[in-house]
Amino acid sequence: MIVQVDPKATVSQLDAIKDAIKAIDYKATEVRTQRGFYLVAIGKKDFDIRSIGHLEGVLDVHRVSDAYKLVSKKWKVGYSEIDLGDGVKVGGDELALMAGPCSIEGEEQIVQVLTHLKSQGVRVMRGGVFKPRTSPYSFQGTGMDGLKLWHQHAKALGIKIISEVMSVQDIGPMYDYIDIYQVGARNSQNFDLLRELGHVDKAVLIKRGMSGTIEDLLQSAEYVFSGGNERLMLCERGIRTYEQAYRNTLDINAVPLLKEKSHLPVIVDPSHGIGIRRFVEQVALAGVAAGGDGLIFEVHAVPEKAWSDGQQTLNFAESKRLIHKARRLFSFCRALEGEFPLDEEPA
Amino acid sequence: MIVQVDPKATVSQLDAIKDAIKAIDYKATEVRTQRGFYLVAIGKKDFDIRSIGHLEGVLDVHRVSDAYKLVSKKWKVGYSEIDLGDGVKVGGDELALMAGPCSIEGEEQIVQVLTHLKSQGVRVMRGGVFKPRTSPYSFQGTGMDGLKLWHQHAKALGIKIISEVMSVQDIGPMYDYIDIYQVGARNSQNFDLLRELGHVDKAVLIKRGMSGTIEDLLQSAEYVFSGGNERLMLCERGIRTYEQAYRNTLDINAVPLLKEKSHLPVIVDPSHGIGIRRFVEQVALAGVAAGGDGLIFEVHAVPEKAWSDGQQTLNFAESKRLIHKARRLFSFCRALEGEFPLDEEPA
Amino acid sequence: MIVQVDPKATVSQLDAIKDAIKAIDYKATEVRTQRGFYLVAIGKKDFDIRSIGHLEGVLDVHRVSDAYKLVSKKWKVGYSEIDLGDGVKVGGDELALMAGPCSIEGEEQIVQVLTHLKSQGVRVMRGGVFKPRTSPYSFQGTGMDGLKLWHQHAKALGIKIISEVMSVQDIGPMYDYIDIYQVGARNSQNFDLLRELGHVDKAVLIKRGMSGTIEDLLQSAEYVFSGGNERLMLCERGIRTYEQAYRNTLDINAVPLLKEKSHLPVIVDPSHGIGIRRFVEQVALAGVAAGGDGLIFEVHAVPEKAWSDGQQTLNFAESKRLIHKARRLFSFCRALEGEFPLDEEPA
Amino acid sequence: MIVQVDPKATVSQLDAIKDAIKAIDYKATEVRTQRGFYLVAIGKKDFDIRSIGHLEGVLDVHRVSDAYKLVSKKWKVGYSEIDLGDGVKVGGDELALMAGPCSIEGEEQIVQVLTHLKSQGVRVMRGGVFKPRTSPYSFQGTGMDGLKLWHQHAKALGIKIISEVMSVQDIGPMYDYIDIYQVGARNSQNFDLLRELGHVDKAVLIKRGMSGTIEDLLQSAEYVFSGGNERLMLCERGIRTYEQAYRNTLDINAVPLLKEKSHLPVIVDPSHGIGIRRFVEQVALAGVAAGGDGLIFEVHAVPEKAWSDGQQTLNFAESKRLIHKARRLFSFCRALEGEFPLDEEPA
Repeated sequence: MIVQVDPKATVSQLDAIKDAIKAIDYKATEVRTQRGFYLVAIGKKDFDIRSIGHLEGVLDVHRVSDAYKLVSKKWKVGYSEIDLGDGVKVGGDELALMAGPCSIEGEEQIVQVLTHLKSQGVRVMRGGVFKPRTSPYSFQGTGMDGLKLWHQHAKALGIKIISEVMSVQDIGPMYDYIDIYQVGARNSQNFDLLRELGHVDKAVLIKRGMSGTIEDLLQSAEYVFSGGNERLMLCERGIRTYEQAYRNTLDINAVPLLKEKSHLPVIVDPSHGIGIRRFVEQVALAGVAAGGDGLIFEVHAVPEKAWSDGQQTLNFAESKRLIHKARRLFSFCRALEGEFPLDEEPA
Repeated sequence: MIVQVDPKATVSQLDAIKDAIKAIDYKATEVRTQRGFYLVAIGKKDFDIRSIGHLEGVLDVHRVSDAYKLVSKKWKVGYSEIDLGDGVKVGGDELALMAGPCSIEGEEQIVQVLTHLKSQGVRVMRGGVFKPRTSPYSFQGTGMDGLKLWHQHAKALGIKIISEVMSVQDIGPMYDYIDIYQVGARNSQNFDLLRELGHVDKAVLIKRGMSGTIEDLLQSAEYVFSGGNERLMLCERGIRTYEQAYRNTLDINAVPLLKEKSHLPVIVDPSHGIGIRRFVEQVALAGVAAGGDGLIFEVHAVPEKAWSDGQQTLNFAESKRLIHKARRLFSFCRALEGEFPLDEEPA
Repeated sequence: MIVQVDPKATVSQLDAIKDAIKAIDYKATEVRTQRGFYLVAIGKKDFDIRSIGHLEGVLDVHRVSDAYKLVSKKWKVGYSEIDLGDGVKVGGDELALMAGPCSIEGEEQIVQVLTHLKSQGVRVMRGGVFKPRTSPYSFQGTGMDGLKLWHQHAKALGIKIISEVMSVQDIGPMYDYIDIYQVGARNSQNFDLLRELGHVDKAVLIKRGMSGTIEDLLQSAEYVFSGGNERLMLCERGIRTYEQAYRNTLDINAVPLLKEKSHLPVIVDPSHGIGIRRFVEQVALAGVAAGGDGLIFEVHAVPEKAWSDGQQTLNFAESKRLIHKARRLFSFCRALEGEFPLDEEPA
Repeated sequence: MIVQVDPKATVSQLDAIKDAIKAIDYKATEVRTQRGFYLVAIGKKDFDIRSIGHLEGVLDVHRVSDAYKLVSKKWKVGYSEIDLGDGVKVGGDELALMAGPCSIEGEEQIVQVLTHLKSQGVRVMRGGVFKPRTSPYSFQGTGMDGLKLWHQHAKALGIKIISEVMSVQDIGPMYDYIDIYQVGARNSQNFDLLRELGHVDKAVLIKRGMSGTIEDLLQSAEYVFSGGNERLMLCERGIRTYEQAYRNTLDINAVPLLKEKSHLPVIVDPSHGIGIRRFVEQVALAGVAAGGDGLIFEVHAVPEKAWSDGQQTLNFAESKRLIHKARRLFSFCRALEGEFPLDEEPA
């Protein structure tokens, strides 16, 4: 059960609500986010929802049968939109586009990519400065120096930054220089990291684990939301299957399922989803057609020379084509939906 | 190596070609299909391709490094189009649509579905009469009686029939009543069945096995082609992964990969691909956006009462909407491609 | 529900039993095997089991809640033992061993392997004469000629033959020359083949499909049993997973689970289960320790020169060592079980 | 390449070695562990190994072609043994046993389990105090209080403690109270955590990720080793596959493969490996027969009342039986190995 509490409720009103929850043997967790004040109550007994609903200070009460609660679509009308400021939004009426290199390499590369994105009207740049590398001897990223340099140039152009955070200690240092914390596939169930990101007031994008279920992903998001941060996005980036013809198998089914289960925006990562440069475009378009709210993909001036992931990175020409097509397709699909609204039985 | 032989070549010319192949230690298989006469030669040695190419009776010679040969795109200009007669084609400039119930149940159901398809301009009806059921005690299909009844009504309306063939013995009896033999996922590596279908002059659609690789599917197709039948289609229908939120995981990556590896048409089955009725549409649209040549999906007047697979079957209203959207999307995507032709480097 | 019928029941007694089953809205299938006469009744209603049990001609009635019935352990006391004649048994107090090459190649090879097996007291030789090869251009087996030659030598030494049958048409021709029909992983859900093997009075070993579930395997066995043949064995041979360090991932969990779910003997195939020669022994021993009734593995005089599967085939010295260890371990484990009988709560 | 450096080498000798490595374009990482001083050099060029080997201060030089270096078996004679003090060892001639509840619950439970372990001569107790729970609303463990209480009782009985560490911040606080840091499956690629554990002088057990490859696991171990800690163990605990009959699929193949690839001890976790209490024993025995160095399993006085994982937890009687059988089997298998030494070709 989710109880939406009036932020102006008095302490004694709040106590009365908590007592009522305790009286039906439910365990309540208090959640204050940027947007609301909730009591998430977990229990097994059946009860009369009005016994809570009529209390003073209660805005609304919702039964949510899912294991995850706050990220569930069961209690929210419509979808969540994440406002990144300066008119940059994720989850609304425009396709959200995030693009950039696998790794931030240096000033020249940063400027090249930013210039490309600017020319295409893309407002969010991705890039890794702390790289989760399988081998300890591989390049581990340019770290905070790389991030600061990147931030300086991006800010000047009004472009937002999304970058992976790998540990709790880095949340603080990164804070001033990024707009979206990315939780990588390998950290998708790093619960300490997720919990801490719940205490931050910046947006978070959570990638699905390599063998994470849909339910796992939503529970990971619940960690962040229940910590107090509801500026969240989910990302499908391909899963591990027996098929070895591609790096990962993009799970297109996840897109409509996540959109039904949760009110959070769903971003598709075609670069990791297939891992082969010449197929990134088709997979991206499939993600849009399936109902994705946005795309995150890898681009580099010269993919062949990228320090990492070059085999799945687009060059600027390919990126331009993908951006053009994806936007056109997104508009087309939204219009198509209008022709047969989903809430109306087609004749 | 594939040697395209002139069908009008003389016996002695053919012998000379075979001798030349033997001389370089290659093993040749003679393949005569509806469309051509080929010698598929397998070997390891490097050789001068002109030593074969200059022989009389040789139309063309192609090196094909893939393990599969005749189904490879390496030797063929353009994609194959399958003509089913009466203007019904698969693999061309129109989206191929095949729809119908999981199982053929009886006359009323047949007529209902045919009427629906006719009204939507769908020219191929799917349906099972021999059902591969996990349990021996489950309904096994209406068999040849069901097929004959179906054929009688379908023919009257000019609608083609695709139905699963489960064993070599059924190929003959089914022949007069169907237009496309479907090889199901469970028989995807039933090599005896595939080999026999190579000797038939009707179209064949091969579904990918539940844990079949892309390479497995192409090799299965090679069995049919090398047997003498090149009227072939490939079908992506979802694979088995750890994710249990859906019946199967549709592998959207397979669509662009198959289109690159092979010249055969690629059909997407969203019904089995996700197995949940309310998501079939989005998955189908993703399949179209990824480059699929057609869709095969399940439809029934009253899915709740279907004898099998009701949970993934659309009703007529939903089917109508899907057909409309899929066709519109297909045209849109083809037009979009024209804006940035793939063979031209985008600027 | 399984009704064990007295083979000496009269026609009118049988009719009365069937009427009683019909009266509770169950659908009965008549099954006559080498060992018994059963009515397998499928339905949903709850009923008083005594209403059937007291009828004349009924030996016993069992409720079986599993989807599979006759292969379930729920109705049978103890495990099934398959008698292959001449004192060769599978599923009893001795470890069943089946070994031989992937493919039967010729007389010299046959004699070498038979001589090796004879010297080790192994009574069943495996070998393929119809080979399910991914590519149509690969060696497809020596066929019936190979089988006849093999049979002639094996018979002389009192060694039984297990070989894969790939299609219904081959069941008849193979009949006189083999002792166990093997259903391969790729045909694990070839229901027509399974159904036909139900009409044969020779033993059948069914390999689990590459992505077959435990339930799938048991249902495949149910096809054979319900067809009339209860001389059945199940084989765990590795499944397809994301891990590419081995050809397949032997599912050791399947061994105790199958032994709990079914009364049929469980054979472990370590050769395909890992696919790497130098690890076959450890995997085989694990299979024995987990409770397997037998092993089927690949052996060849010179694995490096085997026509197929050489990379997972043992030579005679390795085979000798494995046989010795596996037998010793099997006896040890059986004795160990006696120290703490499973039906007695350990203190 | 791994260069074993004499700990007594002078600074100028070390500089000379580093210069020689740089001269062949290799990048060296200095690694000082509890046991040795290494330079791990990564590069691509071929070179004369003697050019390094003859330098003063070099004890030995090894080429290691694996992507992981220090954990590879290629450079080490024999297997590593981890000494936990007080005569407790992992990886030697005795089967290492670690057992205990999923979660530490309280004093009574701690004492019950410790008493049981003591009576069976088990020297390491497992238990979670920081629990990685899928849901943020689930019990998250008794934390440091639970650990301290546990430590107090365990120490009194001479029993060592293994417990999961979930984040870098907990390494310090836990240090005085544990003997082995466990890295859980969900943190198997939490590289920051692994790197920090490399700076600790306590043993570390790394569980394989749910979809982690063998190579991933070894690279994770390399993170710890290259950080300076070579007191490492690897743990196979089941992987995610399509099969849903069990919680995970224990990958028995991993045991012999890990033993061949690495010199580190391999521990098998049958509790998570199958997740079903009544099959834990057989899976554990399989792990021993396959060559595992030890077992880690879950035990509780009353599994039905355990706060977590009760369905896969043994009671004391079952635990006693498993311990007895596993030890007897371990001795038997070691003796069996002696009958046919692996380094000698069996006749």
